[in-house]
Amino acid sequence: MGKNNLYGKMCRCEPGVRHRLSRWDPDETTGLDKEQAQEQFDKTIKRLQELEFLLYAENKQSVLVVLQAMDAGGKDGTIRNVFGPLNPQSCKVTAFKTPTSVELSHDFLWRIHAVTPRPGEIAVFNRSHYEDVLIARVKNLVPKTIWSKRYRQINDFERLLAENGTHILKFFLHISRDEQLKRLKKRLEDPTRYWKVDPADFEERKLWGDYQKAYEDAFTRCSTDYAPWYIIPANHKWFRNLAIARILAETLEGLKMTFPAPKYDVKKIKVK
Amino acid sequence: MGKNNLYGKMCRCEPGVRHRLSRWDPDETTGLDKEQAQEQFDKTIKRLQELEFLLYAENKQSVLVVLQAMDAGGKDGTIRNVFGPLNPQSCKVTAFKTPTSVELSHDFLWRIHAVTPRPGEIAVFNRSHYEDVLIARVKNLVPKTIWSKRYRQINDFERLLAENGTHILKFFLHISRDEQLKRLKKRLEDPTRYWKVDPADFEERKLWGDYQKAYEDAFTRCSTDYAPWYIIPANHKWFRNLAIARILAETLEGLKMTFPAPKYDVKKIKVK
Repeated sequence: MGKNNLYGKMCRCEPGVRHRLSRWDPDETTGLDKEQAQEQFDKTIKRLQELEFLLYAENKQSVLVVLQAMDAGGKDGTIRNVFGPLNPQSCKVTAFKTPTSVELSHDFLWRIHAVTPRPGEIAVFNRSHYEDVLIARVKNLVPKTIWSKRYRQINDFERLLAENGTHILKFFLHISRDEQLKRLKKRLEDPTRYWKVDPADFEERKLWGDYQKAYEDAFTRCSTDYAPWYIIPANHKWFRNLAIARILAETLEGLKMTFPAPKYDVKKIKVK
Repeated sequence: MGKNNLYGKMCRCEPGVRHRLSRWDPDETTGLDKEQAQEQFDKTIKRLQELEFLLYAENKQSVLVVLQAMDAGGKDGTIRNVFGPLNPQSCKVTAFKTPTSVELSHDFLWRIHAVTPRPGEIAVFNRSHYEDVLIARVKNLVPKTIWSKRYRQINDFERLLAENGTHILKFFLHISRDEQLKRLKKRLEDPTRYWKVDPADFEERKLWGDYQKAYEDAFTRCSTDYAPWYIIPANHKWFRNLAIARILAETLEGLKMTFPAPKYDVKKIKVK
């Protein structure tokens, strides 16, 4: 990463180090106010659109963005705001829900592998294979002998992707427990959001500590040079959007992409 | 369709009638200038974003948009401008290229069926199963005994989708032969577009008449009440974008969607 990768440096989980969420402030805004952030965000999106076109034209490398968060952490809003302005032909979102019976009959990476990006594409995962070391662990959906092997399996899988031209960025949208409460309550006040309400989400809050611990282990064991985790301060949505857009732009800038040379001698083509 | 469906009425291929492209003016703008069209377009996109959210929340019906055009007809630009502003989580684009050997070993609708939209989604096809009665017919990729059966097979397939809650809109981006030439020439002048240049595209121009005839047969035989074809005047990109956005909005307005009732008694949920 170059010297302009400020956001990446701030949010990146250094590989091989034990990470604790209590050391990261979900309220961080680096002194920016909302208006300043919005201005920077708009510029970054314009630049991202150019970089996305170049990635698509070059047709060699790809990007995989993993989004994970606690309930109400802002995954949907991030997708709408940061990835919405990109070209839907090259930026594809997959939301992973409770596995179907067919998916469960395969190994946990099977359904993930099927939708990894092709050259030129940006794939965005709303939830991901990390659920298999998060909810699967916290709720005892599989025994420890199974989930404890998955960290290495994930690292091996992500290395395979990386060695084949996929740049992996994993974002944890970090909100505080109070902020989650505020957002869940808001859903109870807006009739156009009632369909999102599930009492189970409020029950899950009791497991907050277990989830945070499971996340910390995922960062500690699966933040690698080829697929780093970033912890994004996400209590302020406008700062969250800016940080993710900036890290994506910094990464794309670093790929040294070029427009491919013409496959034919353009001057020799007769047009009529 | 209601009385406000002006664009739909103007562009729709009436089912059961013989269609000739020479009767449709690719330069049509209904008297609008670019600035007026842009203003209407911006309003329509805002409305589309609301309607898309409602479609997603209701989670019952889906939309399938088919985009077909001659080379340089504007499929990519339409996707960027009209579908780009929608939420990539519910609006998914698939580009169909030359079939792979696996795809070719199945019937021609197999790869199409695999990516039809789920409830709540808008699927956009950049090219589609119609290539199998267009290029496949014009270039004799399969014998007439094969492709001539496909019109009925397509109608049966599209009816299946329609009867299962998918609203199908098929758009032909109608440009003139001169406009195509202008656009292909432009690619030869822009180094960032060289990678798109293929001398074969210029050769294909010789088959213009054959393609137009194949398209006319597709409109005549496959414009149905449940899956109509729309011929979009597309020499002016700004009018093309407006017409497609309006027809999509008119269609969504007609679905009488409502936000689902809460699955639980919201008042009984305890928040802490």
